[in-house]
Amino acid sequence: MATRPRLGHIQFLNCLPLYYGLVKQDVLLDVDLVKAAPRSLARMLLDDELDVAPIPSIEYARHAEELVLLPDIAISSDGEVQSILLLSKVPADELGGRTVALADTSRTSQVLCRVLLAKHWRVEPGFVEEPPDVSAMLRDADAALLIGDDALRAYWDRPEGLHAYDLGAEWTRWTGLPMVYAVWAVRRQYATSQPDAVRTILDSLNGSLAYCRAHLDAISEYAARWEPFPVESFRSYFDALQFRFGPRYREGLTRYLAEAHDIGQLDSVPRLAIFGESE
Amino acid sequence: MATRPRLGHIQFLNCLPLYYGLVKQDVLLDVDLVKAAPRSLARMLLDDELDVAPIPSIEYARHAEELVLLPDIAISSDGEVQSILLLSKVPADELGGRTVALADTSRTSQVLCRVLLAKHWRVEPGFVEEPPDVSAMLRDADAALLIGDDALRAYWDRPEGLHAYDLGAEWTRWTGLPMVYAVWAVRRQYATSQPDAVRTILDSLNGSLAYCRAHLDAISEYAARWEPFPVESFRSYFDALQFRFGPRYREGLTRYLAEAHDIGQLDSVPRLAIFGESE
Repeated sequence: MATRPRLGHIQFLNCLPLYYGLVKQDVLLDVDLVKAAPRSLARMLLDDELDVAPIPSIEYARHAEELVLLPDIAISSDGEVQSILLLSKVPADELGGRTVALADTSRTSQVLCRVLLAKHWRVEPGFVEEPPDVSAMLRDADAALLIGDDALRAYWDRPEGLHAYDLGAEWTRWTGLPMVYAVWAVRRQYATSQPDAVRTILDSLNGSLAYCRAHLDAISEYAARWEPFPVESFRSYFDALQFRFGPRYREGLTRYLAEAHDIGQLDSVPRLAIFGESE
Repeated sequence: MATRPRLGHIQFLNCLPLYYGLVKQDVLLDVDLVKAAPRSLARMLLDDELDVAPIPSIEYARHAEELVLLPDIAISSDGEVQSILLLSKVPADELGGRTVALADTSRTSQVLCRVLLAKHWRVEPGFVEEPPDVSAMLRDADAALLIGDDALRAYWDRPEGLHAYDLGAEWTRWTGLPMVYAVWAVRRQYATSQPDAVRTILDSLNGSLAYCRAHLDAISEYAARWEPFPVESFRSYFDALQFRFGPRYREGLTRYLAEAHDIGQLDSVPRLAIFGESE
């Protein structure tokens, strides 16, 4: 008796267009969809509670030997991303010796912020991890890394007197490459034993992405009905956000992991193992 | 800012046709669907973790003052139900003084079984509640109440040498009325403060039921792809299973609750409070 594949889903705004596609393409009939935060999805995948899941790029790198990646999908940006923002009381290249507060909700963004400060802006601030409360963060520190809703709010409604840096845009300006925030990972054992199921999931995800790319206006209207931002903001965000994972994106991911390794945030840089491509 | 209504869903086979309709009608875009067993859904609804949920009829009766019911939907049967089965080593009217094992997974079915034994077959067996393991139950007892998959398996593949009673059919034979196993309940406070949201959910559920009634062949094929029974069995089951809650069904529910009260399984029989109908 076959059992439905267990597919993870990120319950943040960035994956809302994909969810819309999954529902419209009736994918929820043939997978057990489990919604959670990215870090929880990574733990569930490694604990064999899920078969396929979007997980933070940095978590993939730490467990690459147990995982393979789906070839055509990732959460990525090629330029601005809008939802990962460094707010600072001084220009970023003057943050040396000062304190940067990092929202504790995204490891990949934290490492991205550390990389950009060390290598792009060439400064060495101190860091403190905190819950994502902007006011508290900026009371304690000279700059704050915001993620998700908080970042979007600040992106669209720039707080006066603060410098704001879109870390997707800064990454691409520095490297000339896209940035990959999350990848869809498959447990290696599942990919080996159930390749047909993995191919079916991949087809479903690709179908859902095609649907969502063709319906971004409707999705923006849908998002604005239930989430605290206007239609135009969503449309702009969903245009910035890519779900691509082609060759340049993979290059961007490898570069990101190499930089993370270089500043001591990752033990080793894995070769990307992609489902269906010979290693 | 509006938040999506939190709608419970029973994760058993009996609600699979409805789930199919919910997916096909894109309802999952506008509700937060939470899948669980019926008893868990009742607890979550009473604890304000859900706004609307299908819950066991007997649980509704125990908390009726906090709840109102949706008018057009219930899990019900008018005759056989197939998924609630009493298997017995002797004819049911000879079970007096013997032991009946009750699967501990459905309170409504347990009470139905007790009512039928006491009032329809007029016997007084002893009862023992157990996990739903047929072999263990029939090792310990002279009869076993089976529910769900176990009952369906026994319904379609009658075990030799045992008497089998479909409790939906027995109820209707005895009372001339349908049986209502679960009702869609709304927290009274939510129904009062968010009547438009409740109406929208009701419309969505009705639309999904209309869809599922029109596509029972496709749903049976879908079910057989993922669940351990053949297409024809599902088709037969989904024909037996009703989602109706019209006047005769409400009469059946009230009769059931009165009988439960009569044998000491329910403290009092509530008047049914239906959303949108004056009390």
